[in-house]
Amino acid sequence: MKGFAMKKIGETGWIEKEIPSIGPNDALVRPTAISPCTSDIHTVWAGAIGDRKDMILGHEAVGIVEAVGSEVKDFKKGDRVVIPAITPDWNSLEAQRGYSMHSGGMLSGWKFSNFKDGVFAEYFHVNDADGNMAILPDTIDDATGVMLCDMMPTGFHGVELADIQFGDKVLVIGIGPVGLMAVAAAAIRGASEIYAVGSRPNCIEIAKEYGATHIINYRNGSIEEQIEKLTDGKGVDKVVIAGGDVDTFATAIQVLKPGGRIGNVNYLGEGDFVKIPRAEWGCGMGHKQIAGGLMPGGRLRMEKLISLIETGRIDPSKLITHRFTGFDKIEEALLLMKDKPKDLIKPVVIIE
Amino acid sequence: MKGFAMKKIGETGWIEKEIPSIGPNDALVRPTAISPCTSDIHTVWAGAIGDRKDMILGHEAVGIVEAVGSEVKDFKKGDRVVIPAITPDWNSLEAQRGYSMHSGGMLSGWKFSNFKDGVFAEYFHVNDADGNMAILPDTIDDATGVMLCDMMPTGFHGVELADIQFGDKVLVIGIGPVGLMAVAAAAIRGASEIYAVGSRPNCIEIAKEYGATHIINYRNGSIEEQIEKLTDGKGVDKVVIAGGDVDTFATAIQVLKPGGRIGNVNYLGEGDFVKIPRAEWGCGMGHKQIAGGLMPGGRLRMEKLISLIETGRIDPSKLITHRFTGFDKIEEALLLMKDKPKDLIKPVVIIE
Amino acid sequence: MKGFAMKKIGETGWIEKEIPSIGPNDALVRPTAISPCTSDIHTVWAGAIGDRKDMILGHEAVGIVEAVGSEVKDFKKGDRVVIPAITPDWNSLEAQRGYSMHSGGMLSGWKFSNFKDGVFAEYFHVNDADGNMAILPDTIDDATGVMLCDMMPTGFHGVELADIQFGDKVLVIGIGPVGLMAVAAAAIRGASEIYAVGSRPNCIEIAKEYGATHIINYRNGSIEEQIEKLTDGKGVDKVVIAGGDVDTFATAIQVLKPGGRIGNVNYLGEGDFVKIPRAEWGCGMGHKQIAGGLMPGGRLRMEKLISLIETGRIDPSKLITHRFTGFDKIEEALLLMKDKPKDLIKPVVIIE
Amino acid sequence: MKGFAMKKIGETGWIEKEIPSIGPNDALVRPTAISPCTSDIHTVWAGAIGDRKDMILGHEAVGIVEAVGSEVKDFKKGDRVVIPAITPDWNSLEAQRGYSMHSGGMLSGWKFSNFKDGVFAEYFHVNDADGNMAILPDTIDDATGVMLCDMMPTGFHGVELADIQFGDKVLVIGIGPVGLMAVAAAAIRGASEIYAVGSRPNCIEIAKEYGATHIINYRNGSIEEQIEKLTDGKGVDKVVIAGGDVDTFATAIQVLKPGGRIGNVNYLGEGDFVKIPRAEWGCGMGHKQIAGGLMPGGRLRMEKLISLIETGRIDPSKLITHRFTGFDKIEEALLLMKDKPKDLIKPVVIIE
Repeated sequence: MKGFAMKKIGETGWIEKEIPSIGPNDALVRPTAISPCTSDIHTVWAGAIGDRKDMILGHEAVGIVEAVGSEVKDFKKGDRVVIPAITPDWNSLEAQRGYSMHSGGMLSGWKFSNFKDGVFAEYFHVNDADGNMAILPDTIDDATGVMLCDMMPTGFHGVELADIQFGDKVLVIGIGPVGLMAVAAAAIRGASEIYAVGSRPNCIEIAKEYGATHIINYRNGSIEEQIEKLTDGKGVDKVVIAGGDVDTFATAIQVLKPGGRIGNVNYLGEGDFVKIPRAEWGCGMGHKQIAGGLMPGGRLRMEKLISLIETGRIDPSKLITHRFTGFDKIEEALLLMKDKPKDLIKPVVIIE
Repeated sequence: MKGFAMKKIGETGWIEKEIPSIGPNDALVRPTAISPCTSDIHTVWAGAIGDRKDMILGHEAVGIVEAVGSEVKDFKKGDRVVIPAITPDWNSLEAQRGYSMHSGGMLSGWKFSNFKDGVFAEYFHVNDADGNMAILPDTIDDATGVMLCDMMPTGFHGVELADIQFGDKVLVIGIGPVGLMAVAAAAIRGASEIYAVGSRPNCIEIAKEYGATHIINYRNGSIEEQIEKLTDGKGVDKVVIAGGDVDTFATAIQVLKPGGRIGNVNYLGEGDFVKIPRAEWGCGMGHKQIAGGLMPGGRLRMEKLISLIETGRIDPSKLITHRFTGFDKIEEALLLMKDKPKDLIKPVVIIE
Repeated sequence: MKGFAMKKIGETGWIEKEIPSIGPNDALVRPTAISPCTSDIHTVWAGAIGDRKDMILGHEAVGIVEAVGSEVKDFKKGDRVVIPAITPDWNSLEAQRGYSMHSGGMLSGWKFSNFKDGVFAEYFHVNDADGNMAILPDTIDDATGVMLCDMMPTGFHGVELADIQFGDKVLVIGIGPVGLMAVAAAAIRGASEIYAVGSRPNCIEIAKEYGATHIINYRNGSIEEQIEKLTDGKGVDKVVIAGGDVDTFATAIQVLKPGGRIGNVNYLGEGDFVKIPRAEWGCGMGHKQIAGGLMPGGRLRMEKLISLIETGRIDPSKLITHRFTGFDKIEEALLLMKDKPKDLIKPVVIIE
Repeated sequence: MKGFAMKKIGETGWIEKEIPSIGPNDALVRPTAISPCTSDIHTVWAGAIGDRKDMILGHEAVGIVEAVGSEVKDFKKGDRVVIPAITPDWNSLEAQRGYSMHSGGMLSGWKFSNFKDGVFAEYFHVNDADGNMAILPDTIDDATGVMLCDMMPTGFHGVELADIQFGDKVLVIGIGPVGLMAVAAAAIRGASEIYAVGSRPNCIEIAKEYGATHIINYRNGSIEEQIEKLTDGKGVDKVVIAGGDVDTFATAIQVLKPGGRIGNVNYLGEGDFVKIPRAEWGCGMGHKQIAGGLMPGGRLRMEKLISLIETGRIDPSKLITHRFTGFDKIEEALLLMKDKPKDLIKPVVIIE
């Protein structure tokens, strides 16, 4: 079969591979729509997860089940499914203690285009199919469905990690596709004021549609100053970090109330240390809690988010700014993600 | 001063009393808008809290501060404030363990028209003013503000007790004013499908506007049957009980998934026992958790809910079906609440 | 192979069956020690789970792995293992939402001697072996190890459900083997005063050794009266129910503080309703939370409890009052459990 | 009255001051036993909280009530009481959202020898007496009682922040008096293996008595190496930090499992940043949660901890290595704390 791969750090290209074989618990899926992710860019050009040779890229796809293993009970050939970017081993000790995304080791629930070939291929392999796939209902089109794989669950997890409660004032740092989903999730989680940090016009527009009440644009001063003013010096209840870098946490800590929480879902690709400013962190005594984690994957999560789309609570298709048609357009879509034109939020490739 | 009082069980009337004296931590407030509550009806005509003699009724009011005690730091004469129905003693042991509404004994955070005179008077007394009043901003009118006292926090608390999570399917039993607030709160807490139980046309209309996706009308069969059908036999994730009686819990238990939760905010005025059906409760082993509790009062709660109104996340004024003007209309408004005409949801009396 | 079975309701006996075949995720285990449980008695003589024909009994066993399926990675023939009474399907939706014991339906994580043959046989089948077995270290003997299957995790779960915090005053109703484990768990969870309800001398003795500070004996008056006196009328913070029947909850509710929690781990075999006294429950408003649930099974749970035994935090072997040797003694041990002599807490049969 | 004060940064001495006047909610207390704390040393000689002039030191005391304000209901002259180091304003917004120790601003629940005179005086002032004092029962002597003010609640809070569960393997960094209390608290919270980091012989001895299963001594290699070996490379479930400095967190992050939690109760007096190692923190994705906070104060907390002493769950008097008698010995005890002789854990001065 054909797949679009990382050939080595800094180099991509089309390759030929065997169709993956599946074990008794697995499924083989033929993608019908995929989306490249910033992680793919980091993987190839920043070498973020180390060297990989001829590894097929991609971890966001919806598709049609081609085959299932002998132990798979709930899916069959022909089913239309969505598969999350994170596909845990559900019987692992990590999953049993509530952290399935780290099954088999920290971050190891992330398998596609990390420990095995990804979804930019004619077929791809899904481990623990009963636990890691969900039926995609007819009411949701393929392009929208792909937003379920990573953008929506990651943004929502930021809100969960920050533990947003009714009436909280929330700062969302970064309004790329994940940050926009965090804004939308904060709004349907009960936040009142949502301060969204960003400067690109179409992102700002969508952030407002998703529920941001204020936009923090760097052109108007530092985040700290603007939050200081907007909250009368009281600071925010919670912060979701969906952009920036290791230095972003200093800002988050500074504007956070004692007893507040930071939920980070931004992958920190560089820097030796995340630096927490000692005094603003209350000399270790301020109850400013810091949490950060990979999105939960698995079937239940997909089904829950699907039901939010079906009931109209959220429309993730607003993220899609670029649409391609045809399997061979995967390369173009990925390179677009690399080039990051100003109007790009999220591209999707419809395969059939 | 003049007040509208319960003279004894079954009898109401206007009475004259001394203006309440205030201690160092207290405030004296002059109401500008009030609303009668079903509890007032139960108090007078069902004797729900036992006999009371010449006790001024009412626990929902916004008003103007007339005087504050020597220790009150954050409020002053002339401030426009909202006061929750529940006004805890914040230094009590109960408040320190997170249950301020039970400060001084079970339900004892409820003081107005229970342990002391209520708000249907020219003036009323607020204990621990710094902890129990909140500034009502100009953006919120008096009538809307009165919904903050009891309807909104009680409905929201049902959703908190049920611990609704993203994508949960939720049954809300009862769509009187509290149930309608629970529907709205469930929607902005991340519920997907919301099944609202009721039959009155204007309540149904508003339930849909607040986010109900399905209406369960008793004319179409039992709740159990309808939920069975709507959920393909899987049941709901959570139940909020905002109406019915002691027998309602059997329905809730039956339709609830194992691991689900019931949040009750309905005051159960009659019956010896709430009956939990043994088998449907998994013989005590089903992890169908049952929680029920009085709304949290206090200033923070008011400020949080105010910010939800100000940011447009919720508009509680939809509850108001009847408006009166003039202090002397309190009696009429209360009797309306007793008569419960079909189109009544919530009446408000604007005093000045 | 030979097994001791429920032939039909009210009748037991030895039967011959095929050795269970195992699928790719399963294991076959040869028991080396087993213990009968009160549930076995209810299953046979009260027909608690309905009719079963020639079903091998028993769900508490340690043993030696005889064979594993192709997908089992962490265990091999010859491993000495403990298997919990509850063996969930870890990839089920229920497990993914934190309630693995209800995988596949309420209580359906309980498979042994319920949906499939139990452990009173020469061999038994373990589903999802990697997720449901744990290595039993040499430091723990077989008899002690069997206490890990059900008594210890069930008692501990009562304490988890009641959510005991530092310095809580806790009532434990019932000091059979599960209740005694709840007493021990409450003590190592940070409870201060532990009031244990029981009257049998050896149970009382062990309850004190495990950390009970006061014994509530029915001969000295009602539980309500005694708790009233012991707590100066304030009541208890938490209640664990490990004995009694559907009427026990009324007592628990009455003695519980507002904001308190009941954790039930007693299987309620009879009665139509668990009756919650309305007034004592604060008319539905008292925040007296009611939780009850089947123990969590699985490998992680076993490993956690094993580490508590290994570090000497708890010694569950105190529960064992009767020891038998030889496979054929299973019948005698089970009948002892049925007869319940006064000095019985828990019997164990060492098979080899 | 006489008091022992910080005259300015780097200088202490006896001073004369007016007896504090009390408001309606306050109490005046005459100390009968006090203890100096490392914080007093930091306050004076490191200028940790900035300059203070003639401020009486000390925040750990038990004593006798001398007078109470008009609104104080539960205490009267002559009562023997313990007062926690942290005395919140219980009606503040911070207390209402569960963070009473930050009432009025981050860390501002800490008032003694910070925003007002401390307890090293003939009399001291207690704000919100009903909410911030507790009766010290006759069963607990003065010296033991003083351990309730700061050492015990701070150590226990580390365990709460780390959210220790049954069978967790826990690293406690630092076994000074607070760390020793954390060891004891971890043991009665359900930890199995407790790895205590320290090297002083008497601290090691007491750590073992309190439940440490392993001692990590820097002479045997780095903490990371020793934990690696002790846990077979798996790491620990939770970490309590009760010593070290801003660099200690790197160690904690490295040895922590994904999904684990750090609970810091060490006051970080120096350094610009707490540095979280990016890669070991899972690039922000590892769910290694970081929490740190000032102890909760107030009456309930005191009563809960008192009940743990009374039931013999814990004996904090083991911390007391040096005892002085006489008000004038306060200076000597404080200087001892400054000199930190090898055998010092905690000194107490019995005043009468």
